[in-house]
Amino acid sequence: MKHTAATLTLLVAAIAAVGAAPAAKPSGKRNLIFMISDGFGLTSEAMARTFAQQTGEVDERMGSLMDSLLKGTVQTTSSDSLVTDSAAGATAYSCALKTYNGAIGVDPAGRPCGTILEAAKARRYTTALVTTSRITHATPASFAAHVSHRDMEDLIAQQLIGQNVAGSGAVVDLMYGGGLCHFLPSGDKRSCRSDAKNVWQRAQQSGFRTVDSRAGFDSLNATSSQLPLLALFAEDHMAYEIDREPAQQPSLAEMTTSALDIVARASRAAADAPGFFIMIEGARIDMAGHDNDPATQVRDVAAYWDAVAVAKEYVAKHPDTLLVSTSDHETGGLALGIDGEYVWYPELLTPVSRSAESLCRELRSDKDGDVTEAIKAALPDALGIHNATSDEVARIAAGVAGSSVQCKMAVGGVVSRRAHIGWSTGGHTGTTVGLFAAGRGASRLHGNLDNTRLGRFLADYLGVDMRPITAAIQGTVTQQPGFKRQARSFHVHN
Amino acid sequence: MKHTAATLTLLVAAIAAVGAAPAAKPSGKRNLIFMISDGFGLTSEAMARTFAQQTGEVDERMGSLMDSLLKGTVQTTSSDSLVTDSAAGATAYSCALKTYNGAIGVDPAGRPCGTILEAAKARRYTTALVTTSRITHATPASFAAHVSHRDMEDLIAQQLIGQNVAGSGAVVDLMYGGGLCHFLPSGDKRSCRSDAKNVWQRAQQSGFRTVDSRAGFDSLNATSSQLPLLALFAEDHMAYEIDREPAQQPSLAEMTTSALDIVARASRAAADAPGFFIMIEGARIDMAGHDNDPATQVRDVAAYWDAVAVAKEYVAKHPDTLLVSTSDHETGGLALGIDGEYVWYPELLTPVSRSAESLCRELRSDKDGDVTEAIKAALPDALGIHNATSDEVARIAAGVAGSSVQCKMAVGGVVSRRAHIGWSTGGHTGTTVGLFAAGRGASRLHGNLDNTRLGRFLADYLGVDMRPITAAIQGTVTQQPGFKRQARSFHVHN
Repeated sequence: MKHTAATLTLLVAAIAAVGAAPAAKPSGKRNLIFMISDGFGLTSEAMARTFAQQTGEVDERMGSLMDSLLKGTVQTTSSDSLVTDSAAGATAYSCALKTYNGAIGVDPAGRPCGTILEAAKARRYTTALVTTSRITHATPASFAAHVSHRDMEDLIAQQLIGQNVAGSGAVVDLMYGGGLCHFLPSGDKRSCRSDAKNVWQRAQQSGFRTVDSRAGFDSLNATSSQLPLLALFAEDHMAYEIDREPAQQPSLAEMTTSALDIVARASRAAADAPGFFIMIEGARIDMAGHDNDPATQVRDVAAYWDAVAVAKEYVAKHPDTLLVSTSDHETGGLALGIDGEYVWYPELLTPVSRSAESLCRELRSDKDGDVTEAIKAALPDALGIHNATSDEVARIAAGVAGSSVQCKMAVGGVVSRRAHIGWSTGGHTGTTVGLFAAGRGASRLHGNLDNTRLGRFLADYLGVDMRPITAAIQGTVTQQPGFKRQARSFHVHN
Repeated sequence: MKHTAATLTLLVAAIAAVGAAPAAKPSGKRNLIFMISDGFGLTSEAMARTFAQQTGEVDERMGSLMDSLLKGTVQTTSSDSLVTDSAAGATAYSCALKTYNGAIGVDPAGRPCGTILEAAKARRYTTALVTTSRITHATPASFAAHVSHRDMEDLIAQQLIGQNVAGSGAVVDLMYGGGLCHFLPSGDKRSCRSDAKNVWQRAQQSGFRTVDSRAGFDSLNATSSQLPLLALFAEDHMAYEIDREPAQQPSLAEMTTSALDIVARASRAAADAPGFFIMIEGARIDMAGHDNDPATQVRDVAAYWDAVAVAKEYVAKHPDTLLVSTSDHETGGLALGIDGEYVWYPELLTPVSRSAESLCRELRSDKDGDVTEAIKAALPDALGIHNATSDEVARIAAGVAGSSVQCKMAVGGVVSRRAHIGWSTGGHTGTTVGLFAAGRGASRLHGNLDNTRLGRFLADYLGVDMRPITAAIQGTVTQQPGFKRQARSFHVHN
């Protein structure tokens, strides 16, 4: 990856220009907590709410905390389809422009677009990205990387640690999530890189404090936390909440608490810092939707609620803060009812103890054994199904023999059918998503907004301008050397 | 149907008690326009919005008028299922209580419950019901009738004209809709009654002005309109908007304009009248959902929007008025995307020129001809399909040979699949629906409400109390003599 001196000069000039524009600069401190529940439609909220009412976690006939924050809805189309992927969906928020499905921080012509995070950093806001996916995955990447296709995660890893056009340092002050594998050289057994670059080491060399364990997370101390900080708790995505081992990985709420502590302290400590911008993603709600796995989804939604509760509490104590939560798109075409029958059964999700992903990993790893017997043996504990029909076992067995996606959808399909939960697709849909907000300026959000209009609103709230950033980063290398689009299409599973 | 003198005395006493309760009585005039978009989930709004953007009726990237009124969401469960039917769904609003699917204005034990309309009438509010369905259908019926099962529409017709426990006169001052057949004696060729009662004539005898034509509707003059008024424009439901002949039937917006003119004038003319209560239903959005017929649904949604626009304009001019629009439930498990593909095609709904219901009526009436040829001949004009596959033709032919519902779902299915629109069911689902409001007190509505809580809110807004009505009407006959539940289950198509 190369950056020309001219480009660097441009960026420095751009940052100076932004910082000096008094007309647009808001007075006083202000913080923005922007939360994205990936693939979370309003029916996912309804499903999780009813599930939580049934388990007693939410009062019967009452809404969740999320519900109380509802302000409106958001249109999610991309530049090339009425059904967006997460890359174009996140770029609509980060750059406030429509782009094509698969695009990470680039416009429809593939040109880098300055993001709200980069523009905030240029204004000396403290910046952070928190997610339960790989940190290199589409949503977080779209706030601080610029590549022509979302699958260029090796290049995204480099850009996230500041080895992009900015070159001279980190744009993201704090990162929490998964995806360590894209930071490790191909020789490392935990690596998924296609080259031998040790991006983890480069991050350390360029000043990042790095953490790769739960113990490391627990030792982070808000009073002395050094920034920039890169903390990744899984090689791949972090675990689904239903599968998560608390001793191994923090929850999204724990990461939110820690990240807010650290960025708030850092931004307060710097006299010239106007505040902080943090993007927090509940990434795997979407993936459970792709798997048509309702029991896994309701737990990830509840984990997201917990993170929203942390952010809401922060806002209550800090009136200089705006909390906005929305989604990039709906996933799955989720429906609470099938086949003309007027009923669905959330209680059947309660005994499910692990994700379809986890069950399939186990079943598919033992292809020498008797698959049918293995399935029969696993279903009581895994799904709470003690009376599986031969048809259900056969469908899961066919999934085990097929692809990982086919296996997960087979398992999810068995649970869904019993619970009378419908799905129209293993991909995304084009319905509107909810817009939730609290705190400073939240009352300005109402009705229906296009996703780019929300992106513009967020930038205006911070008083930042992406245009000089866009001008400065036109030299960014947006192509990953040797990149070949993987056989799996992003149309199938993102 | 019999009413005892004791019961009548009770009701009169109850009305007097309600009218005399100064603590609860709101000061000044106040009006409530309560609109119900039956079977309209937020994805129906998204589908109709995107369709309208594509035809140019709504600006690209902008929301509809509905969107601008969004305040929150409503939980729709009934007492016996997480998925309500329209009877329990409407009774939750009218009586502010949960009841069983199929119940019209009765509680879970089958006892009559006083409705907001009846309580408003007792307070001398002017009252009205406007719908595009039969006026005896579940939603309007639940505001002024009390029967143990929604299919007792013969008895509902009698109750709607005041021949219930109130006996002495009309509780509903104005009714617009369809459903003439349940008012005509079984000897009349337009009748669908199981007995020889002439309820239409009884209505006239008890003081109703009756209208049964478009010409009659046009001649209604707001300056001299006599109340009570019963105007029914179709034997069965009124036409879907896509099929409607303006010379035969008024639109929902036209009915809304006329009804608001008349009830507003009547309530202003009476010095002791506190205002008016009107329920306006877009009934057939739901039925298009049952048929999985997206092209028909988007036109009925647009017709509903037009009615909302009329009501919104009224509210803008009359600040003593609250407009609330919500739905009883979602229908169809509608999804804007199928089969893992990231696209859907609203433009394929544009050339559809008639409903699946209308097409099926024609195809099924000519069973002697060559069905396959008839289908092939009809598809270009009816659905805009010029290249039907043999599979598509075969699926519709199977529907034609089957039941009416099977035919409609086959036709709707062909259009839906081409447009990449998914449905999980021919029935209802349990997701939340939107809550929209404008005018006086609208800002008090936000977040998520249980449907009974919204019913309570509406009664409180009017300052009316249903309890004395409930006490007074316990003698109401809620069983229709000789009633046999029809073979079709309300689980399939309401």
